Amino acid sequence: MKWPLHGSNPQYLYQSMGIPLPDHYIDFSANINPLGPPLSLKEKWGQAFELINDYPDPKAYKFSLKAAEKEGLPMNWILPGNGGSELIALIARMIAGKRVLIVQPAFSEYEEACKANGCQIGYHVLEEGKWELKSDSLIQKLDHYDALFLCNPNNPTGKSFSRSAISHVLEESSTRNCFVIIDEAFYDFTEEVHSFASYIPIYPNLMILRSMTKMYSIPGIRLGYVIARPPVLEKMASFQPHWSVNAIALMAGEECLKAVEHEQNTRQYIGKQRSRLVKFFQEKGYEVSNSSVNFYLLRDPNHIDQLPLIQFLLENGIVPRHTYHFPGLEGSWIRLAIKRKKENDRLMEVLAKWRTVQ
Amino acid sequence: MKWPLHGSNPQYLYQSMGIPLPDHYIDFSANINPLGPPLSLKEKWGQAFELINDYPDPKAYKFSLKAAEKEGLPMNWILPGNGGSELIALIARMIAGKRVLIVQPAFSEYEEACKANGCQIGYHVLEEGKWELKSDSLIQKLDHYDALFLCNPNNPTGKSFSRSAISHVLEESSTRNCFVIIDEAFYDFTEEVHSFASYIPIYPNLMILRSMTKMYSIPGIRLGYVIARPPVLEKMASFQPHWSVNAIALMAGEECLKAVEHEQNTRQYIGKQRSRLVKFFQEKGYEVSNSSVNFYLLRDPNHIDQLPLIQFLLENGIVPRHTYHFPGLEGSWIRLAIKRKKENDRLMEVLAKWRTVQ
Repeated sequence: MKWPLHGSNPQYLYQSMGIPLPDHYIDFSANINPLGPPLSLKEKWGQAFELINDYPDPKAYKFSLKAAEKEGLPMNWILPGNGGSELIALIARMIAGKRVLIVQPAFSEYEEACKANGCQIGYHVLEEGKWELKSDSLIQKLDHYDALFLCNPNNPTGKSFSRSAISHVLEESSTRNCFVIIDEAFYDFTEEVHSFASYIPIYPNLMILRSMTKMYSIPGIRLGYVIARPPVLEKMASFQPHWSVNAIALMAGEECLKAVEHEQNTRQYIGKQRSRLVKFFQEKGYEVSNSSVNFYLLRDPNHIDQLPLIQFLLENGIVPRHTYHFPGLEGSWIRLAIKRKKENDRLMEVLAKWRTVQ
Repeated sequence: MKWPLHGSNPQYLYQSMGIPLPDHYIDFSANINPLGPPLSLKEKWGQAFELINDYPDPKAYKFSLKAAEKEGLPMNWILPGNGGSELIALIARMIAGKRVLIVQPAFSEYEEACKANGCQIGYHVLEEGKWELKSDSLIQKLDHYDALFLCNPNNPTGKSFSRSAISHVLEESSTRNCFVIIDEAFYDFTEEVHSFASYIPIYPNLMILRSMTKMYSIPGIRLGYVIARPPVLEKMASFQPHWSVNAIALMAGEECLKAVEHEQNTRQYIGKQRSRLVKFFQEKGYEVSNSSVNFYLLRDPNHIDQLPLIQFLLENGIVPRHTYHFPGLEGSWIRLAIKRKKENDRLMEVLAKWRTVQ
């Protein structure tokens, strides 16, 4: 079967499975804030039309200034991009042909982009079920690599790695002159995780990836940024197309960075829904990853391959994210986003039903 | 002086010149349709807000289908991108390290992107004032190059090259296995120029670049596409970030491709304004390029370097495009867009005044 490489756009998953796309479905395959974009963005939308008429600011001055303020770093330590995936592609271009280690399971774009640029790829696969980062075994491998990709909190497990383990890896990578790219696309969905951005002045090889699309629910307009030392960003920027970040994204980005209350409400909402869901899954005999963010892995332990469950969910209008492309998972789990209460209710209803038809 | 590399975003030009940004100015530095985007786009804008909430279709199915229909070619001969500049960057990535010939003067992104990818760059500089493409002298150079960039109608001169000269170049490039990239970003502003897209099935090394941002006045949201054979596009796409074209651009692109009447009105409007302007320039002793599109080169023959004129225009709220970065021009001309009647009137007023203060 030819599985789609990513979540969202459920038409492609239905197509792969040969199931007709129903009129109504709920998409649990994209890890987007269920509360939607900040209200202020909707209020400004009408005015935004004028922005399409003119080229975006190629220096993204206003947005970069706001992002730098938030990060507590100078403006030239920030490089905005056309979504996290463009930034990953630019990093991969910069390290073309090098040896890259990826802590797996992880977002598949790291490998895709690095492979396209002729990198040699190695995996450090975490123990299934626990998905803990043990720094000692990872550090042993560092001598053989020029760059390390790490996603924290991890996508697809939702798990946050130990802070001391990451610190240890940073220290050891630094002495080996190995780039470390920490993708923090989901760090703002939890109070537990603190960004490693403040370590960049200490470790010149560290790069932090930020997505704006998840917390602020704007994946349609593409916006993210990378935080790193200016010489690293200058090299990356030399490969970036001019006007890469569109004017609507820049406007939205400025607006979103002000929406502090929306962020706090989101964390609270997600926390409550997660507890409710986990309790239900445990009662019903499902296994679930120890997530600290807005998505989690789930499996029916009665099946090694979750294909029958995926099929059942799709037929019932629930769109999960398959895990066939994630090394270390290979289809034995599904990933689900935490959505609004009513939608999570419906998910639980369908998963309860699955227990009765089995 | 550190000149900005591109037009638009006049704040950067004022800054370079040390002139304070006036409250009111007219930007003649970006070559965008003065009639604005199609009306239907404004009507759909409200609904478009919903699109920001979900990932764009990574295959850009609906847009590609419409674009393919327009071009009369199969859908997999079309690759949409985040504006023309992303497509140029992807081509440059694909031909990294190769020898690239650029017909100059031309859009500066070809060279920028190719240089970033380690290409060796050569110029074929057209004779100033005439800017004609003479195929014989160009073909002599082809043996030493792997790719040729050609902009037709040409940016910045506005001039269309002879069809037979381009055909000759295509034929000779083909026998030498040399890629030819024809940037047709402005071909739809004139009835005179016919696209070379129909030649792609004949010459496997031909690639045609299309911009959606100029004719449809949507530079803020970034959209273009390249037309080429599927194996070429597959290679390019392997370097393209996932979800590179945002959802608003895809929606707008579908809408714009339907706006046939808007295109026709634009061509008519531009044609009328151009005649009026050229007549005035000739009366007032300015030299002007023989443009067939929505912009042109202009010079005051009393000055070799047009810096004093640029300064005068900026001080009078007219923003021209300098030409210091264009090989073969080096500041001896300025580029101006054709805008609405009232704006063109104001330009003529200021240029008439320049004649009196000299």
